[in-house]
Amino acid sequence: MPQAQITLYTAKICPYAQRTEIALAEVGAPFKRYEIDLGNKPEWYAPKVNPASKVPAIAYGGPDAPPENPSPESVKLAESLILVEFIGDLYPSSGIVPADPVLRAQARFFIEVVSTKFGPNFMKFITGSPEGTHTALLAAVEAIQDILPDGVKYAVSDQYTIADIALAPFWARLNVLVQKGIGAYKDEDRKNFLKGLEDPKYAKLNSYVQRLLARQSFKSTFHPVRPLIFR
Amino acid sequence: MPQAQITLYTAKICPYAQRTEIALAEVGAPFKRYEIDLGNKPEWYAPKVNPASKVPAIAYGGPDAPPENPSPESVKLAESLILVEFIGDLYPSSGIVPADPVLRAQARFFIEVVSTKFGPNFMKFITGSPEGTHTALLAAVEAIQDILPDGVKYAVSDQYTIADIALAPFWARLNVLVQKGIGAYKDEDRKNFLKGLEDPKYAKLNSYVQRLLARQSFKSTFHPVRPLIFR
Repeated sequence: MPQAQITLYTAKICPYAQRTEIALAEVGAPFKRYEIDLGNKPEWYAPKVNPASKVPAIAYGGPDAPPENPSPESVKLAESLILVEFIGDLYPSSGIVPADPVLRAQARFFIEVVSTKFGPNFMKFITGSPEGTHTALLAAVEAIQDILPDGVKYAVSDQYTIADIALAPFWARLNVLVQKGIGAYKDEDRKNFLKGLEDPKYAKLNSYVQRLLARQSFKSTFHPVRPLIFR
Repeated sequence: MPQAQITLYTAKICPYAQRTEIALAEVGAPFKRYEIDLGNKPEWYAPKVNPASKVPAIAYGGPDAPPENPSPESVKLAESLILVEFIGDLYPSSGIVPADPVLRAQARFFIEVVSTKFGPNFMKFITGSPEGTHTALLAAVEAIQDILPDGVKYAVSDQYTIADIALAPFWARLNVLVQKGIGAYKDEDRKNFLKGLEDPKYAKLNSYVQRLLARQSFKSTFHPVRPLIFR
């Protein structure tokens, strides 16, 4: 039985949206891609697709329809992490949602650390918030490393999962921004962060994120454009 | 094959912990219950069970061991929403994690609204924060009602799911607190909230939350003790 149609509303610039694109690439799902101009959103987008007016969103199922006028019969879904799990649930054999309940719980816990520790500290650092120090950001990086198992390739095992997908687009943007000096931080903070990250104690993390950025599904969906804004 | 052992570290007072107890009651899983005194946590709890030192947490699998000294072979898991899904994943036939990927995504979206809209506004109201007005809390209640489907018993369908489990303990405590006048809000705000909630426009929500509080798994795990603190 062929899968129901998937229309993805996305934006190249947005790390949340990229999570969804990585998931679709991983499972090999056919989908219609519609780029939303975040600086000038079409007026039909909120009423017809996502009341919160954010990307990513998916119209799933229903008859074939143009993205600008999705069928009322399609189900509209939003929130990047929910979409990533949804895509994994549609294609269980992809393994991006682990079949084992324990690994699944561990993947979700990893995502929780990304969402509550890494994400906020990344944003504070880039936007030059007083709390956005390089030490706070390094502490968040350490929180991720602390839950990385030893001797495996990805966040919870040798299998690439939703946990890796949650982090990759954000790590990639942090990487580009601090390498290029784009951000409201002090240059000293930037240098201190980069230097801090070179400490051998972050070896496990550094080797892990290299694998994230080398993954084909990541590379084929990463479009580093300036300015790297978020919504 | 019998399930691996489950030891639950919990506290009667805590709405997060109650989520886990409801899930265990729903699936009918045998488990060892260990009450943590949140005002005086045992010193072994953080190093041996949950580094964040919060409840709920679960020690899963491994050989039989006393809760005070769990086996290093058991997996330690934390975060209430992760545990609720984990329990559902262990007992898929319970249906608390819907089998259909769309319903699953909708349940998770409902939880997202509970976590980002209802939860914070509930806390601000109870703690008397300047932003914690009765209008803000009613708006959060409305956000929940807006995504409740018509003509079904629970959050996403006639089936009781993780979405209902996420809300029930918090709704119950809000209910008790405002009925009894416990909280740092102004009494006028309390009365305005209660009066606002009686508006016929909240009929769908009111009828839904009545079903939540009438559910056996909720009633058997709700222990309204004073003071109703949170961690």
